[in-house]
Amino acid sequence: MPSSFEVRTSTGSYNVQVGRGLVGELLARQPDAIVMVDERLRDRLPANLPRVISLPANEEQKSLEKMAGVILALRGLKAGRDTHVVVIGGGILQDIGTFVCSVYMRGIAWSYMPTTMLGMADSCIGGKSSINVGGLKNLVGNIYPPREVVVDTDFISTLDAGQTVGGLVEAVKICFARGYDAFCTFDAEQARYPLSAEHAERLMLQSLTVKRWFIEVDEFDKKERLLLNYGHTFGHAVEAATNFGIAHGLAVGMGVIAANAAARDAGWLSPKGLEIADHMRRHMIGLVRSANLQPDAAIPLAKVLDKFESDKKHRKDGYRIVAPQGDGALALVSLPRNRESLDRIAAGIAEACQALDWPLAA
Amino acid sequence: MPSSFEVRTSTGSYNVQVGRGLVGELLARQPDAIVMVDERLRDRLPANLPRVISLPANEEQKSLEKMAGVILALRGLKAGRDTHVVVIGGGILQDIGTFVCSVYMRGIAWSYMPTTMLGMADSCIGGKSSINVGGLKNLVGNIYPPREVVVDTDFISTLDAGQTVGGLVEAVKICFARGYDAFCTFDAEQARYPLSAEHAERLMLQSLTVKRWFIEVDEFDKKERLLLNYGHTFGHAVEAATNFGIAHGLAVGMGVIAANAAARDAGWLSPKGLEIADHMRRHMIGLVRSANLQPDAAIPLAKVLDKFESDKKHRKDGYRIVAPQGDGALALVSLPRNRESLDRIAAGIAEACQALDWPLAA
Repeated sequence: MPSSFEVRTSTGSYNVQVGRGLVGELLARQPDAIVMVDERLRDRLPANLPRVISLPANEEQKSLEKMAGVILALRGLKAGRDTHVVVIGGGILQDIGTFVCSVYMRGIAWSYMPTTMLGMADSCIGGKSSINVGGLKNLVGNIYPPREVVVDTDFISTLDAGQTVGGLVEAVKICFARGYDAFCTFDAEQARYPLSAEHAERLMLQSLTVKRWFIEVDEFDKKERLLLNYGHTFGHAVEAATNFGIAHGLAVGMGVIAANAAARDAGWLSPKGLEIADHMRRHMIGLVRSANLQPDAAIPLAKVLDKFESDKKHRKDGYRIVAPQGDGALALVSLPRNRESLDRIAAGIAEACQALDWPLAA
Repeated sequence: MPSSFEVRTSTGSYNVQVGRGLVGELLARQPDAIVMVDERLRDRLPANLPRVISLPANEEQKSLEKMAGVILALRGLKAGRDTHVVVIGGGILQDIGTFVCSVYMRGIAWSYMPTTMLGMADSCIGGKSSINVGGLKNLVGNIYPPREVVVDTDFISTLDAGQTVGGLVEAVKICFARGYDAFCTFDAEQARYPLSAEHAERLMLQSLTVKRWFIEVDEFDKKERLLLNYGHTFGHAVEAATNFGIAHGLAVGMGVIAANAAARDAGWLSPKGLEIADHMRRHMIGLVRSANLQPDAAIPLAKVLDKFESDKKHRKDGYRIVAPQGDGALALVSLPRNRESLDRIAAGIAEACQALDWPLAA
């Protein structure tokens, strides 16, 4: 498998490279760049870089109110129209880099190096910025692709079990959404925590080349990309009900198991579909369990159902979830808003908790 | 002449309509819009508009630091993805509208109604936002065309002589930059202060349709659009040397006269070119004099030359000005950086001051 590929979008094409030890190459290729980095990773970069902006990667920093300071830091480092910015960090650094580079002198070039598993496996391509304003999350944003994305899998040594497995959950979800063949290729790699950088390299390439397909066929999230919400409606409900006591990716993994159970119990699956859904179920159980993490407290089922019920993506006439159908392909389906549907959702969540050995409370 | 036309750009096409009494039509066409208006013009709009954001049109408001407040005002009025914003005002409102609408929920639709002569004749199309940060002028910005531009020439009754004539100077400059025929068409209209709304309607249509040509052939200011700097290198020097004691457009008018004088004295013009340059000179003298405005103080020639000398658009090996050449067409030319060139510039400025009956000081 080649270690780089192009992503084509209406706002520009860019190259994506995946490998080990690439941070040094990237910095050597852009010796005059200004480097914008998550302050927790500053020590992993050479001490003598001439122009560095270290930023805390938190929600407060990712606000419009803080953007003026970042822009003035660029100006203080004499950034001009021809300046290239190298952004190194997770989703928050990506948000800040996208936004700031898009407006500085009406747009300057940047490269992005993701450092979280979610970033490396998924969100580093097809990205859009999301910036908070006045404490309101993600109220503004824009689209401004980098000139290149460079994934250096050596960064996975900085990640804990929850972050690593959470990113892998999104990766296998992307592959499954593409189809059973893409899933089987990923499955054969036996992704588990802990993960070596070499192993991650193969997995990230698989996940990103599949993600590219979704971006290129459905740049604006109208159809195919909606399937990437697989596991998310359940997952968001579990996250909210536990006050984010479960890492996002693990909650999505649980949601995938719950969605598959609901699809099976609703009779939506053919014998072949049942087999495929069960294959995904087994994959996901093995993956999530490898993190060896437990929720902070028992998962409060009634509260999860409340949060599920109030999800803004539902319609008046039905709950909208992504689940396998027929021979196992994912589809966006609508469940009637009634007691029977909620009972089925509840049974799916209970089954997923049991499969993961997570405690459940009424 | 049709009263509307399309502007095509790589980031979207939009319709431009020019006429009288159009503000009422625009508001009626967008009954659910949020109206963002220069606070000085609020009284000209219906009192019962449901959702209005009135903003002061000053440099402080046009800053990134103030954008959060505008965005939260939109949110306070329950702006959503489908909200349409109608922006009514001059260049500062256009800057704010472009920027805020481009990022709010990653981009919402807007319409723009310019209310200054410069906006109506020139900058309402092909616009880019410019936003101050930390007191640094225009450090950030972007490009986000409105869905439509509606020019209501009834607003000219709100403008003083300097604003009116300044906008007309830019209009005739655009036409002259396009070629002698376009200039003659504009010249035949005898633009003068004061101007009726009917008269302005014809002039704005002429100017904007010519401006459209420049936008469409040279969207990113690489070649043809550079000619629109005609008169500006001189004009900026005069503005700066007089601490902006002369309105921008009037200073540009003076600069056009000075550039033509310099071109004549340098021997750049054929007999036909001399005639055309003199025609423009006479037009400009009549137009600027119709404002009947004098600088606050005598124009300090030595200081003007200092400011001219330090203009950032010059190159190491030459002063760069736009001036008529040969048979009268404009060109971007380079003058050697020496005493002779500066003497020629000085003579041009002195001649322009004399022609306009403006006092000159050493």
